[in-house]
Order: sequence, then C-alpha cells, then structure tokens
Amino acid sequence: MSTAITLPNSALQPDGAGTASFTSSSISSPANAVQTVAIDLADRSYPIVIGAGLMGAHAIYAALPQAATALIVTNTTVAPLYADALRTALAPKYAQVHLVVLPDGEEHKNWQTLNLIFDALLQHGCDRKSVLFALGGGVVGDMTGFAAASYMRGVPFVQVPTTLLAQVDSSVGGKTAINHPLGKNMIGAFYQPQLVVCDLATLDTLPARELSAGLAEVIKYGPIADMDFMGWLEEHMDALLARDRTALAHAVRRSCEIKAWVVGQDEREAGLRAILNFGHTFGHAIEAGMGYGAWLHGEGVGAGMVMAAELSRRLGLVDDAFAARLRALVQRAGLPLRGPVLDAADNAGRYLELMRVDKKAEAGEIRFVLIDGPGRACVRAAPDALVREVIAACCSG
Amino acid sequence: MSTAITLPNSALQPDGAGTASFTSSSISSPANAVQTVAIDLADRSYPIVIGAGLMGAHAIYAALPQAATALIVTNTTVAPLYADALRTALAPKYAQVHLVVLPDGEEHKNWQTLNLIFDALLQHGCDRKSVLFALGGGVVGDMTGFAAASYMRGVPFVQVPTTLLAQVDSSVGGKTAINHPLGKNMIGAFYQPQLVVCDLATLDTLPARELSAGLAEVIKYGPIADMDFMGWLEEHMDALLARDRTALAHAVRRSCEIKAWVVGQDEREAGLRAILNFGHTFGHAIEAGMGYGAWLHGEGVGAGMVMAAELSRRLGLVDDAFAARLRALVQRAGLPLRGPVLDAADNAGRYLELMRVDKKAEAGEIRFVLIDGPGRACVRAAPDALVREVIAACCSG
Repeated sequence: MSTAITLPNSALQPDGAGTASFTSSSISSPANAVQTVAIDLADRSYPIVIGAGLMGAHAIYAALPQAATALIVTNTTVAPLYADALRTALAPKYAQVHLVVLPDGEEHKNWQTLNLIFDALLQHGCDRKSVLFALGGGVVGDMTGFAAASYMRGVPFVQVPTTLLAQVDSSVGGKTAINHPLGKNMIGAFYQPQLVVCDLATLDTLPARELSAGLAEVIKYGPIADMDFMGWLEEHMDALLARDRTALAHAVRRSCEIKAWVVGQDEREAGLRAILNFGHTFGHAIEAGMGYGAWLHGEGVGAGMVMAAELSRRLGLVDDAFAARLRALVQRAGLPLRGPVLDAADNAGRYLELMRVDKKAEAGEIRFVLIDGPGRACVRAAPDALVREVIAACCSG
Repeated sequence: MSTAITLPNSALQPDGAGTASFTSSSISSPANAVQTVAIDLADRSYPIVIGAGLMGAHAIYAALPQAATALIVTNTTVAPLYADALRTALAPKYAQVHLVVLPDGEEHKNWQTLNLIFDALLQHGCDRKSVLFALGGGVVGDMTGFAAASYMRGVPFVQVPTTLLAQVDSSVGGKTAINHPLGKNMIGAFYQPQLVVCDLATLDTLPARELSAGLAEVIKYGPIADMDFMGWLEEHMDALLARDRTALAHAVRRSCEIKAWVVGQDEREAGLRAILNFGHTFGHAIEAGMGYGAWLHGEGVGAGMVMAAELSRRLGLVDDAFAARLRALVQRAGLPLRGPVLDAADNAGRYLELMRVDKKAEAGEIRFVLIDGPGRACVRAAPDALVREVIAACCSG
C-alpha cells in the first residue's frame, strides 16, 4: 500500500508549481518490514528500500535493467563483511559479477582511487549496460556514482549503503564526486542511481564513532525542516544509539523523505537544496583544515551545526533556547560540540579562507545556511567580523 | 531571418514523434556573413555561429550568462595564435579572464592534463558561475567540456573550435571525454555548451594534414545521410582544400545541420546517433593500435570509412560503384585509403580485439555502422570471418 506524505512544516510545503512528489509505503511497523521511499525525478526516478537483511534478497534486484556483467565496488573494511552476500544475491541476475576493492577512507576519495574502478571496468570488458553496485559508505558511494556517471558517459548504478550517513545522505540526491587537493567534492556529477538498498542489518557492524557521525546528518533534518522529527529524535536518541531497528528504520525513512522533497524541488542545487548543507560550510572547513580523514564528515557537520546555530543566534534569527536545544542533541549523539583550532596564529582567518573556496561561495562571498526560526532554513551571507566571533566562541585546540 | 531546414534524404526524415528541430539562418551568401545553426535540445539548446573573424567580436558573447571569471583553455600550438584575441574580446564581459595552456596532442587527452584545468579553476577561485572557453581542436574541446561538466558538478562552457574537425564534429552533440590507457573516450559526460563559435579564419593556420583529417568527418555525412551533400563535396573538394571560405562555410553548416538533426533525435546515443560513428569502429582500432597521436583521428576515420564501405559491399548492402565513389572522395581529400598493419602475426585478430572494447560493443559483440544504401546507415554485427577478409583486403604495412 502506498500513501502520499505531506511534510508538516510550512517551509517545506510545495509552492503550487512544485514538481516534487514522493510516496512512501510500509508493511505495518515491525522492524523486519520493508519500507519504500519512491524518489520521483521524472525519467530519473528510483526507489529506496529500507529494512533489515535486504541486501541478500535477490528479489530486491529483479526490476533492474538486464546486463551481462555487474561490478561490485567496495572497500577493504566492508568487503570481508558483505561482498559475498551481495555477490550471491546478484548471481541469478548477471552472468558475471566482478569485484573491485578500494582502500578505505576519505583520504582515498581521489582520482587515483577512482581510476581503480575504471581499470576494473575495462579489464573485465564491461560495456554500456553493465551495472555498478556501490557497497559501502559515502566515499564508496560518491566514487562509484561518479565512475558510473563517467564510464562510457554513463552506465547504471545501484547504491547499497552500509553506514547510517550514507543511508540518510548520499542515498538521495544524486550527488557524486571526488576531492581535489584544493577542495572537497570539487569534481563530480549529478547522477541518479537505479535503486538504493538500505539494509539496516549492516548498521550492526558500524563502529560507534561512525554511527554518531551518521546521526549528525539525521539531526540536521530537524532544525532545517521538521521540528516534530527533532522532538522524535530527542525521545529516541538512546534507542538509535542502541541500534534499535524500528527506531533506525524511522530515522532513515524520515530523513530520506525530507531530503527527497527538497531535492525534488531543486535537483541541480539552484536554490532550496542548499539548505541540506546546514552545518556543512563550517564542517567542510574543519575537514579540509584538519586534512581529510582526521575528522569524520559527520563530526564536522556536528560541530558545524553548532557553529551555524550560534551564527544564527548572533544574527537574531533564533533564540538562546533553540541553540541550546540543538547543542544538547548533538552532544547526546556523541558528536563533538566544538571546532578544532586550525591555525594558532589566525584561526578565524584560516576558517574564512577555507570557506571561501566552498562550492556555495559566489565571487568569494561565503553563503551560510542558517536557521531563521525552528524548522526553517535560509541561505545568506554574514559579516566577517561576526563570523570571527562565532569561530572564537566555538573552537578549542 | 530564420528558416526551417528539411533534410533531403529519407533516412533523416522525422518519424512523426521526433523531438528534433533546428533552424538555420544566414545573411545572403558572402563569405563574411554570419550563419547560425540553432541546436534545439529543450533547456540545453544553444546556437552555433559560423563566419570568418567571429572570435574577436565581443558582441558574439553578449548573451552568455554573467560571471565574475572566465577561463580560456587552450594548448601550446593555439595559444600564441588566438589567445590574445579571445581574451580581448571577453574582457568587456568578465572582470577576470584567466588562461590555462595544455600540451598539444591526443596523447595528452588524459587525466593528468585534465587536472591542469581543475588546478587552474581552483587556483583562480573560479565558482559555479565561471565560464570555460575551449579554444582549440577536438582534444581541447573534449577535455574542457568534461572539465566543465565535472567542476563543482557543472559550470557553463563555450566551444571556440579552431580546427575543421572540431567545427563539424565536437561542436554538436555534447560528447566530452578523456582517454583511458585501455580505450579512447572511455571516461566522459554528455554535456552541452552554451555557444559554439566557428571562426573560419582560424582554418587559415591549420596544417594541411589536419584540414584533410577534418574533411573525413565532413565526407561522413554524405554516405550516412545526404547524397546531395556528397555530390556537392565531389564538386567543391578543390575549393575546400584551397580554404575557400564560402565553400568552408557551407561544409561546416551542412555538417552541423545533419549532426544536429541526428543528435536531436537521440541525445544520449541510445540508437540512431550511432550512425555518426561511421568509419569510427575501424578508425578507433587504428588509433588505439598505433598509439594515440600517431594517426590523426580523421585519418583513422578516413581509412575506417573505406573499410566499413568494403564490409557493407561484401554483405551485399551497397554495390561496387558506391564503394569506389567513396574511396575516390576519401583519396581526393588527402586521406589514407588503407589501414596500417597493427600486428604482423595476426593483424585481423588485433583489430577485432581492439574493436571489442569499443563503447558501442555489447557483451563483446562489435556493432558496425554500415551503409545499407547510398545516404542511409544502419548498425549491425558482422561475422568475424568476413571482417577478417575486409581487414586483409584493406590494410598494408
């Protein structure tokens, strides 16, 4: 059964001409049920399926386009855990299922690693119909997606995200990319998968630090779009940290629904979609300034949300109580509350320098995603002096 | 004044539901007139302007999107000839016009060279609105287009092709790519420019060998789509080789019109568009087998068209006279008629091996673009034994 979902907060109501729509369905409520969020992007539409143990169920892949070969792209951490299960599930569908195992970590999200995927595709004689499967976290997903977008100018791909962050973030939106030494995600494409399989059972093997990092992207959806969801997270944070599958299923589904609505309005990030980067402007500066991989992406977003909320507060957009409430939720998720000192001599200057090369910056002006009322985000510039005050107040070495 | 063009040959008549359309306009017929071919691809539509001396006319760029910065991408051969003129013409439009000069040659169409463009974009603080200008031949155009498609997931770009091949081939269709050691154009994107400026004056400085290579792609449009155009080429080959601007303007315009019609039917190369690869399956094998850069692309296409016509003849699709007529035209254009021997021990085997990794191949089966009647192309497989005969008949060391 399929029902249309209406988002509760006014900031996310369709404005008449909106093109976005998605439908969600679920079989009652037990933890083992399969839930589906349908992402509606015209000829680039696809379903996200959510449930425990889905990866190994070959029926999940039945509707994918037929091809002679499939290539599973994964990393050294995930391969021993899940590559065999996925391979077995794909065997009835594809005559040949190949595997390429990448080194693990954000520091490998570069051209050299991407090229390992192209090497494998060509060595195995993969053609324009071959299907890529991204089995892993956000780094594997981003690189596999960009490889799929670029190989022979585009082949089909499927996301099988094995981290909470990838399930709630990269599974919707079609953003793929690699890093450049001078900036994160600078080289990439908008490219949609055919299918996303969020297998909640894979979260059992996720290190606690990565579970927390994933919760940063879940928490984000509250302040920018849905304060009811923020309230639900406050009630269920202990269950999420204990990996309760019913709670995880709801968090993943609601995050995907909100992101799908926003992306449906603005697939190519011309406007509204930028609100999904709440916490990311400061967060990207932290990641780049510390060297990719030192802080997890979600950790940067956690501290970055606290900094963006503080900037919103100092601009008079939200009150003390809202900023304190967000800070408390970030802390309960096990995330860092304070940014690192990136430069002992001029820390704020270093943050500003890194934020000016952010993709959202225009002609050197930093565009901050701020909260201008609980459940509502805006994108705007801020005076350097005020940003410096926020950085001084929110960082420690 | 703008008039709709109807292609004369039945193979290119719209089939009712066709989405393609283009309009062409010209100011009478003198060589200095500006002609426009409008490429209609919905929100990715753009004009091709054709004429002598257009590059330096700043009015040509007036309708482009506004931005703070532009980056001219060119190579070591073209930069000293035209970079200053383009820079001067762009100065009224963009506050900053930067330049990056790549090494010249197909052998540099790889990731390392592409990365020089990304380095320049980031070093100059280029943002999502910055406009890239590809000033040069097909290699510069393909790499700049892929850089534009990928930088921050897509920035605007303009083609200023300075070779005949680039003016008639890469200016329409939105194919961008780099080579991989295991295959040509294996990594890329479909990405449309904002504008194409075909300045016929740039052909004055084109080496004779490259003029001939460009004529291969012009000749191609005859056998696959328009025998009237083939007849026109037979009459005007001497004028074209003498770089007569009226003749060149017609050849460039007619080639772009035919290609625009085909691409408008099939932007993502699902079917019909493959006919534009007439001569390319054998040609790509020649290029790859000799090492990129040893044969010019158009030279491979020249010998490749002769081989594809011979295969068509042996399959009974065309008669001896047609194959001889095409051979004569290829020869008059100054192009090689015979393919090289790639492997003394098993030359046909080497060709077949290289052709099996072509992007058009499916599950290892080579898809040949063949002529199945003058002015009409088809895509089909052929028995290996027959292909071997053709290679034996058409190659010499």
